[in-house]
Amino acid sequence: MIILGIDPGYAIVGYGVADYDKNRFTVLAHGAVTTDADMSFPERLSVIYNRISEIIDTYNIDVMAVERLYFTTNQKTAIDVSQARGVILLAGQENGVAVYEYTPLQVKQATVGYGKATKKQVMEMTARILNLQTTIKLDDTADALAVAICHGFSSRSIINVK
Amino acid sequence: MIILGIDPGYAIVGYGVADYDKNRFTVLAHGAVTTDADMSFPERLSVIYNRISEIIDTYNIDVMAVERLYFTTNQKTAIDVSQARGVILLAGQENGVAVYEYTPLQVKQATVGYGKATKKQVMEMTARILNLQTTIKLDDTADALAVAICHGFSSRSIINVK
Repeated sequence: MIILGIDPGYAIVGYGVADYDKNRFTVLAHGAVTTDADMSFPERLSVIYNRISEIIDTYNIDVMAVERLYFTTNQKTAIDVSQARGVILLAGQENGVAVYEYTPLQVKQATVGYGKATKKQVMEMTARILNLQTTIKLDDTADALAVAICHGFSSRSIINVK
Repeated sequence: MIILGIDPGYAIVGYGVADYDKNRFTVLAHGAVTTDADMSFPERLSVIYNRISEIIDTYNIDVMAVERLYFTTNQKTAIDVSQARGVILLAGQENGVAVYEYTPLQVKQATVGYGKATKKQVMEMTARILNLQTTIKLDDTADALAVAICHGFSSRSIINVK
């Protein structure tokens, strides 16, 4: 099962692609789609939509796992991130990929086993679970890989229950 | 200039299509794109994206005018409406349509000439400006037509200034 994990945003969309097979993850790609502040907002949405669609196609993605938004006091940011998140969900749907959503709490529990884990703990456990030798530069990319792990582990427990 | 006015939402997206020529509006279509609560959220986004794209194509839309969101205390609703709004902006962008955004205040000023106008006043003035004989059933549709009027009048003042 090839999972695309996504940390949504409108300036930076973190992504991580991992193959999850027999309880092991193999990372195929990770990085970020970035959009230029000089562009109009609809243009930025278009870049995000088309780049995510390309990634789905390139890596034969089976499943997309997208982090849910934190509630925030900055409504302007929340609105803009949500608008970008809408086109990310749409890219999954239009390309025939199953779309799952996980809260930051679920991601922390899946990676560190503890809902109050710090960002640093999530990054360390993500690197360990994925056997990454190199350090992940961007927070957004680390978050995206953590969401992919969250989906892998969740799907395992779903199967085990069955 | 054929304007598509949009009142964004995820369950109901109000739309109004009007031709604005020589300071007069001719309404070509109005209605609502509705999505079923039984669908997954990404499926609902897909319906909205594809129906808006169809409307753009059917009526040879030149310009899209989309109402900006009110700030609200219900963050869950704000997030879901924003996600839907993102795919609406994307539909405009991907179909080569210029996209403009107007606040509720701008819409009230353009239709009634008064920023504190009531919903009822906006509906009455919208019907009068558009010479509509029939009553508009849905609030969302009336709002969409009001946004279209707002863009028509704004474009006129832009041209006049030049």
